[in-house]
Amino acid sequence: MAYDALIAHVKQTESISQAQGILGWDQEAVMPPRGAEQRAEQMGALEAVIHARRTDPRVGDWLAAIDEGTLDDGARANLRLIRRDWQRNQNMPGDLAEAIARATSRGHGVWAQARAASDVSAFLPTLTEIVNLKRQQADAQCLDRESRYDALLDGFEPGMKTEPLDAILGSLRAPLSDLRARIAGSGRQLATLEGQFGPDGQMAIARELAGVFGYDWTAGRMDLVTHPFCSGTLGDVRITTRVDEARPFDCLYSTVHEVGHAVYEQGLPVALERTPAGSHASMGVHESQSRVLENQLGRSRAFCGWLHGRMVDTFGIDMDAETFYGAVNYVSPGFIRTEADEVHYNLHVIMRFDLERALIAGDLDVADLEGAWNERFAADFGQHVTDPAQGVLQDVHWSAGLFGYFPTYSLGNIYAAALHEKLAAAVPDLDAQLAQGDTSAVVQWLGQNVHRHGSVLSAPELMQQAVGGAVTSAPLVAYLDAKFSDLYGI
Amino acid sequence: MAYDALIAHVKQTESISQAQGILGWDQEAVMPPRGAEQRAEQMGALEAVIHARRTDPRVGDWLAAIDEGTLDDGARANLRLIRRDWQRNQNMPGDLAEAIARATSRGHGVWAQARAASDVSAFLPTLTEIVNLKRQQADAQCLDRESRYDALLDGFEPGMKTEPLDAILGSLRAPLSDLRARIAGSGRQLATLEGQFGPDGQMAIARELAGVFGYDWTAGRMDLVTHPFCSGTLGDVRITTRVDEARPFDCLYSTVHEVGHAVYEQGLPVALERTPAGSHASMGVHESQSRVLENQLGRSRAFCGWLHGRMVDTFGIDMDAETFYGAVNYVSPGFIRTEADEVHYNLHVIMRFDLERALIAGDLDVADLEGAWNERFAADFGQHVTDPAQGVLQDVHWSAGLFGYFPTYSLGNIYAAALHEKLAAAVPDLDAQLAQGDTSAVVQWLGQNVHRHGSVLSAPELMQQAVGGAVTSAPLVAYLDAKFSDLYGI
Repeated sequence: MAYDALIAHVKQTESISQAQGILGWDQEAVMPPRGAEQRAEQMGALEAVIHARRTDPRVGDWLAAIDEGTLDDGARANLRLIRRDWQRNQNMPGDLAEAIARATSRGHGVWAQARAASDVSAFLPTLTEIVNLKRQQADAQCLDRESRYDALLDGFEPGMKTEPLDAILGSLRAPLSDLRARIAGSGRQLATLEGQFGPDGQMAIARELAGVFGYDWTAGRMDLVTHPFCSGTLGDVRITTRVDEARPFDCLYSTVHEVGHAVYEQGLPVALERTPAGSHASMGVHESQSRVLENQLGRSRAFCGWLHGRMVDTFGIDMDAETFYGAVNYVSPGFIRTEADEVHYNLHVIMRFDLERALIAGDLDVADLEGAWNERFAADFGQHVTDPAQGVLQDVHWSAGLFGYFPTYSLGNIYAAALHEKLAAAVPDLDAQLAQGDTSAVVQWLGQNVHRHGSVLSAPELMQQAVGGAVTSAPLVAYLDAKFSDLYGI
Repeated sequence: MAYDALIAHVKQTESISQAQGILGWDQEAVMPPRGAEQRAEQMGALEAVIHARRTDPRVGDWLAAIDEGTLDDGARANLRLIRRDWQRNQNMPGDLAEAIARATSRGHGVWAQARAASDVSAFLPTLTEIVNLKRQQADAQCLDRESRYDALLDGFEPGMKTEPLDAILGSLRAPLSDLRARIAGSGRQLATLEGQFGPDGQMAIARELAGVFGYDWTAGRMDLVTHPFCSGTLGDVRITTRVDEARPFDCLYSTVHEVGHAVYEQGLPVALERTPAGSHASMGVHESQSRVLENQLGRSRAFCGWLHGRMVDTFGIDMDAETFYGAVNYVSPGFIRTEADEVHYNLHVIMRFDLERALIAGDLDVADLEGAWNERFAADFGQHVTDPAQGVLQDVHWSAGLFGYFPTYSLGNIYAAALHEKLAAAVPDLDAQLAQGDTSAVVQWLGQNVHRHGSVLSAPELMQQAVGGAVTSAPLVAYLDAKFSDLYGI
């Protein structure tokens, strides 16, 4: 049968893609330094195999031959997702794909050097080339009635369109900017946690945290890397973290974050393994799973009480639980997105979303990007960027051609808050459980309402079903406002 | 040019094969338990890709189109090796390859169960099937004037033929059997090292040993596994070991053994990377590199003196250096090949070589194998096998279809002794250097005479050049006789 042949092909391709994932993990976590050269060749060779399989003409033949009437929901979802990918791939000229691969491969080095030298002009020619190529890609791939940005967004957040995304992210900007200003004007400074925290103690708590948030250690492992990430799916989902002896929350909360991603991957539907319908719904939904554990749950007063106990036991910290809760949620304006607190984070993202949309639409010239960045930053953060390394050059994404990725971060935060509102209603004694370090009811709720669905529903459909209606930014605004009004007495 | 196109194809295939190697390492060293199922699929998917590339008809076209006159030595060696592999692959019917893959895949489980139950009859039908399939393979693949066994041997020891192999291994049997009997009759028992040796101390010495024997840590790493192995090549060569607190020599000498393999791989010719001419010459040559470090050097009196110092420093052992040297070289008859000392080891191997040759030739029936095994064991070892788990069922090889592999172990020992004889002559103060834990001159000699040649020469040519004439078993016999006559006063 055509469907079975198609799925067998897709599964084998996915196995090769998984192998690439293992090599990627290996490269960051355990590879010896001199292995880099042969690793690049291995990755390239696998990429060529995967590309050839994804554009194999037989895929088109199978798709044409399938009788949809005989298929169940999972199979129909697979057909929809494979057909869509196939169409996008068919629309992507081979020489354009190669040009993008070359430009972004070179782009990374150029960007890293420019950032190190705080020299925007050194990056502009490369960025101009990449933006032009991505515009061409968008023109080639955009489907019926899509905007250019829609076509790029689809690679990360399938099912989402620019217009509703703009509406929901845009609705965050004013309330967040207002909350930021009220906190800055409150005159209150929360305490920070000072001291040195040895790696063994941090890792012991990090491991315990992983278990507490539902990570299955028989289907994973944790290692140290420079930039933490999560990789793999189902029976082999590996998390990573890092240790800075002066900043234990970095290790602990990045662990909880990656565990959120990992528990999603471990909980995907086994029956649909290695098929598109069996994988995560979108980057935004993925991010929501990490953020709800990290922020709404992990940084709650109740859970901080539990973590405070562990920090006292392990490091003998001299700070009461309420002050500790404040230290975990310390708000500080800053230039760097990846170091931002819950209040500032989405302001960073929305700004990038607006700027990259303008670049792709052709409404903003790459030459004017730095000025636009700095102006917007001053407006939203009340601070002036003086060093472009801390401004327009800070993120790797654009040099890698990742246009359409940034908004999924904030979408994840919006989804997280919306899910949290529902699960808090579904688990009445949630705070009491969190205070005991018990997240089992929460993780079970997420498994039931999100994880087990894979991509059988589109991300917007999945979210709508999980929260029982249209998703808005209201729960996130309400959550942040309540939490930080309380912490800052505003 | 046809040669360039062929080599680009071969290199990309080799990169995929390297990726498979990393996944194999990962599986033994770091993979979480629940990852096994998806790993099997990944390995299968990569295997299918590799097989398709190796049998790609374009390889035949390229081979036909190449003008040999324009090629240098390395390229001519590549052409010879690729052509030979291509011919063997062309001669292998697809359904036979599949039947062997299926039978040996099932065979492993059947063998493991049969061994656990000490039940030879449970393994016989499977072994009969595998022997028949391997005979068919040999019939299909054997080239002009080759015997069946030659065709199988070629997969592990290219360039070697059954007849000279039989002559050289056969010449070991009588002197070793005689030495074994003299030691047994000497009445002398060497001391053994008793006590508990913590894992941290063992691993610290193992790491130091790796460095001492020339292992490049920037191009490798060491991890713990159940059955130690070495994997990878050039810039990424990983070694593994294991720790038994009661048996520190197991960890230490298996480390030196794997380092021997690793230093060979790290020292192969970079200019020929990912091509057949740039890879190891044969399994026998590979084994010689591990054995010369492990035995001729690592178990020498001089080097044992250095190691004794480390053991005193680390564990405070209460044993003088000469007694320690005896403990390292303790001779004990036993049923198990992998636990055998230098005196008994090759007797185990020669016996398997003779038996498997008879099976493949059709001179021995699988039904009569156990009897033939036990009879031969009594003759060569002076002991009667009572438990087949300690006899004919002990090794995994036959259940995996590895006929032609066993003799490479002893060939490695023969090569090691022959190389050692030459390098000892080339490095006059070798013992003084070893006593200082300095093996740099030795490793350099092996690099010059073996490692850097890859497979540009065939294994027999390489060895002949390295030792300056025909290789015989005389250096191994002389080495063992001198060493153990001295230790046992015989």
